[in-house]
Amino acid sequence: MSKLKQDMREIIDSAIKAVLPESAVKEALNRKDFQERKGKGKLIVASIGKAAWRMAKAASDILGSGISGAVVTKYDHSMGDITGLEIFEAGHPVLDENTLKGTKALLEHVKGLKAEDTVLFLVSGGGSALFELPAEGVTLEDMKDITSQLLACGADIVEINTIRKHLSGVKGGRFAQLCAPAKVFMVVLSDVLGDRLDSIASGPAWPAIVKKYCLNIKPELMKILAQETPKKLDNVTAVITGSVTALCQAACEIAKSKGYEPLVLTTTMTCEAREAGSLMASIAREVLTSGRPVKAPCAIIAGGETVVHLTGHGMGGRNQEFALAAATGISGLEGVVIASLGSDGTDGPTDAAGGIVDGTTEATLKAKGINISDVLKENDAYNALKAADALLMTGPTGTNVNDVAMALIG
Amino acid sequence: MSKLKQDMREIIDSAIKAVLPESAVKEALNRKDFQERKGKGKLIVASIGKAAWRMAKAASDILGSGISGAVVTKYDHSMGDITGLEIFEAGHPVLDENTLKGTKALLEHVKGLKAEDTVLFLVSGGGSALFELPAEGVTLEDMKDITSQLLACGADIVEINTIRKHLSGVKGGRFAQLCAPAKVFMVVLSDVLGDRLDSIASGPAWPAIVKKYCLNIKPELMKILAQETPKKLDNVTAVITGSVTALCQAACEIAKSKGYEPLVLTTTMTCEAREAGSLMASIAREVLTSGRPVKAPCAIIAGGETVVHLTGHGMGGRNQEFALAAATGISGLEGVVIASLGSDGTDGPTDAAGGIVDGTTEATLKAKGINISDVLKENDAYNALKAADALLMTGPTGTNVNDVAMALIG
Repeated sequence: MSKLKQDMREIIDSAIKAVLPESAVKEALNRKDFQERKGKGKLIVASIGKAAWRMAKAASDILGSGISGAVVTKYDHSMGDITGLEIFEAGHPVLDENTLKGTKALLEHVKGLKAEDTVLFLVSGGGSALFELPAEGVTLEDMKDITSQLLACGADIVEINTIRKHLSGVKGGRFAQLCAPAKVFMVVLSDVLGDRLDSIASGPAWPAIVKKYCLNIKPELMKILAQETPKKLDNVTAVITGSVTALCQAACEIAKSKGYEPLVLTTTMTCEAREAGSLMASIAREVLTSGRPVKAPCAIIAGGETVVHLTGHGMGGRNQEFALAAATGISGLEGVVIASLGSDGTDGPTDAAGGIVDGTTEATLKAKGINISDVLKENDAYNALKAADALLMTGPTGTNVNDVAMALIG
Repeated sequence: MSKLKQDMREIIDSAIKAVLPESAVKEALNRKDFQERKGKGKLIVASIGKAAWRMAKAASDILGSGISGAVVTKYDHSMGDITGLEIFEAGHPVLDENTLKGTKALLEHVKGLKAEDTVLFLVSGGGSALFELPAEGVTLEDMKDITSQLLACGADIVEINTIRKHLSGVKGGRFAQLCAPAKVFMVVLSDVLGDRLDSIASGPAWPAIVKKYCLNIKPELMKILAQETPKKLDNVTAVITGSVTALCQAACEIAKSKGYEPLVLTTTMTCEAREAGSLMASIAREVLTSGRPVKAPCAIIAGGETVVHLTGHGMGGRNQEFALAAATGISGLEGVVIASLGSDGTDGPTDAAGGIVDGTTEATLKAKGINISDVLKENDAYNALKAADALLMTGPTGTNVNDVAMALIG
């Protein structure tokens, strides 16, 4: 393996480690504003989401036995007991009775808290579905019905959440209200691009959504929808530690420590994967030709979640298509390696995290009779990258903070 | 017009001016290596291409009456006499008898030159078709026939040029040989991405191309093809002054002078226009959110020539699609303007150079019932941008060095 490829692998591996649930919790708990709360009053751990068990376990390992609280995670996602904490498993993405059971139990822990108490609220992907309790006057059936209606109409996630938070007894800031006057210290492992903690804030108003999709809603529910959600929460501190931004930042720092000048282009890349790959390749080419936008040795980094439009029936994923398209763009060049991968270690329905290519990849494929343009038409990046020994395999990483792509030039 | 939009317009206008044929010639003739040649021996001007007249006129204006030589440009592209120079107009893109006539006349001017003499060789787009003379033993019909065969087979421009230079009496370095021992000072107004002066050098070998496309070539021509073209030319200095690189560089400097920190991402962008627009928007968003890759006020610049895949029947061009897609990505944001334009002032079959959008563009369109996603499906960017007063109109600029896209954030 070339020095450049080896460096790329090391940067990737270390960057992923930095956004594991354990690292995210550790980093957050080291913050001064959390340290200042410690030892004052009660410390309640409320952990929800697919990584809830791992985040809670990390908190327990750091904070010791003085904690109490509850964990609500997806079925098969808990890995044993954690001292002081109740563990619940529930349905995801569709909530079920266990969701309500876990949520109620969790709420019991935050009842009657005092101002000196702290709720450590650990949130990971899937947390929205795993932590739910209908507002007073709303049934679980009502929530499921309206969610189904919204999904059937093609409403987007922001619209769905806008409606749901009005029907929820814990969303839209209501959980923080229930914790008050205790302080809520929220740690988020985010798979939401742009790290918008409350994407709802800038979303459309609920009446517009009801009207837009002609939702069929009972009059008594309309009254509940009309209730305002808390606008101001002064007992909450939110820390986003694990996110694609943190992933890019980690890649940045590790690249720098290895002598590559880092440049993060974006953390909200959402365009077509292969086109982003082509553009990344053209930037790498520019670096080699003119020293722009930065001089080599350097690392050009872009985070986000690209998309793939299927036109064929092959096997692959967005990161693999990104890498394969980039291979064409850097074909024949020396001193550049481009990789793209899903931080969870899984890209599309494959066992690869993504792809890692260099200036020889296209020629290697050509020698085997494989034409990249044809492969992309068939969406068969997996088999092509496999043939060029250019698949990036990490195995499941235990975190999920979207994707990162990087060109290493040196 | 907002300050940001006004600055964008001024940067664009000044950057285009910097790559006009006149500016390109002026800059090149100011170079030390040209200045050192002046006044030593004869000064011959050989100007070919669509901007040949304008480049020659600029040279004449700077150098005065001591020059002789010839201009070969496209029909209707000469604008009067230039003292000391013969002016020819010929066919483009298909060469004709006037091409040969002009080329022969030009070659007469470089006959019998001495080492102290200088040939100022001014080359602009279309120069390849406008300057041609078949090699000894090759007829114009032979060249036309092989070119037609190559075009019909879908051969790319590099492959076509590889074959043609072997059949040409002036290509592949042969013109420089004819000028020797005089020095050739070549000034190029380039519309070739990546500024590869001799894209042929790294191209495939001619026998591979003949075989690949099963070209039907007479045995006597095969012998001529087999003749080596000059590999080493020590009497040529080539200066690329007008090119997309120069355009980006000019935009860079003007932006900087206005207080925007410039960052050139690439000058060889070739991906799908709308996807590049989306990515540019996500970079602008990143600047506003995190100060990466550079802090505002800044200008993110990308040059190249994106592509559009037609799926609808609307009106537009690649720069307009770039801008429209970017509008979605920056919707609602303040302090960012994104523009993309063709340096010739024409984008696709429209009278617009491109588009210029900001955070209000999408909402403006929405209020008029226009959905950007639908517009892109119809390839109807022109009408949408027109409705949002977001078309960028420059009129014909008189130069053609591909496209430039820019996000101005401040």
